[in-house]
Amino acid sequence: MGERTNYDQMAVGESLEFGSYHVTREEIISFAEKWDPQPFHLCEDAAKKSVFGGLSACTAHIFAIQNILAHDHPKPLNVVAGLGMENFNLLLPVRPGDVLSYRATVLDKRVSSSKPDRGIIWLKSCLINQDGDSVIEQTAKIMVANPS
Amino acid sequence: MGERTNYDQMAVGESLEFGSYHVTREEIISFAEKWDPQPFHLCEDAAKKSVFGGLSACTAHIFAIQNILAHDHPKPLNVVAGLGMENFNLLLPVRPGDVLSYRATVLDKRVSSSKPDRGIIWLKSCLINQDGDSVIEQTAKIMVANPS
Repeated sequence: MGERTNYDQMAVGESLEFGSYHVTREEIISFAEKWDPQPFHLCEDAAKKSVFGGLSACTAHIFAIQNILAHDHPKPLNVVAGLGMENFNLLLPVRPGDVLSYRATVLDKRVSSSKPDRGIIWLKSCLINQDGDSVIEQTAKIMVANPS
Repeated sequence: MGERTNYDQMAVGESLEFGSYHVTREEIISFAEKWDPQPFHLCEDAAKKSVFGGLSACTAHIFAIQNILAHDHPKPLNVVAGLGMENFNLLLPVRPGDVLSYRATVLDKRVSSSKPDRGIIWLKSCLINQDGDSVIEQTAKIMVANPS
């Protein structure tokens, strides 16, 4: 495993930018077939009649893309465990051909009082499409290694 | 597509129970290889040394399982679109061999003022393992069809 960003290397207000991910029609359909087979995620005709107005990725797929993008960095976060999320908002559909990147900004942090070899970081994070618009956003609570 | 549960068929306080899903070691590893290749989701030895103390499913996988379970009902919700989530908490690891089910309880609801053919439902939802313990919980905000 390559070099990682530890707790003490992330300052409040600092942002990390991650990768880029090209979303294909085939993957939108195959992911939705397996995990969220709503007609509007599977079929162009059903999608056109839906509020999305065309094929769009299911939420679980968008969330999975965000997760793989979090690894697409020279020094990804040295994650001990994910703890949860707040204010997870779906802002725009993710379409075939979209190119997504991930941005995470440190809102707050604290070292664990019982286990000082780890700390909790609150990240305001979002997936951004090729037009610079956020498609999802959330505040993630993540436990990160804090080796001495 | 089979029969669906519309907005007006869900009352505040009502719960729906969904399916059951058997989580395998092979799927934990293959999902994490593709979407969240942390060593503790891929390798028993790395997992034993992690805070999880053994192999566990990645968050994106757990969320995807919740999504497919939401279809495993005689009359699944007639979803127009997901809008977001609050208070998404990861409570317990999901292990190989776990059998998960999904429970959703209506916290609140309102008809769209601009488009009365749909309404927003706030669902307190959780995935429950074979021991009856919640592994994740959240409040989901979902737009549901309200046909006249």
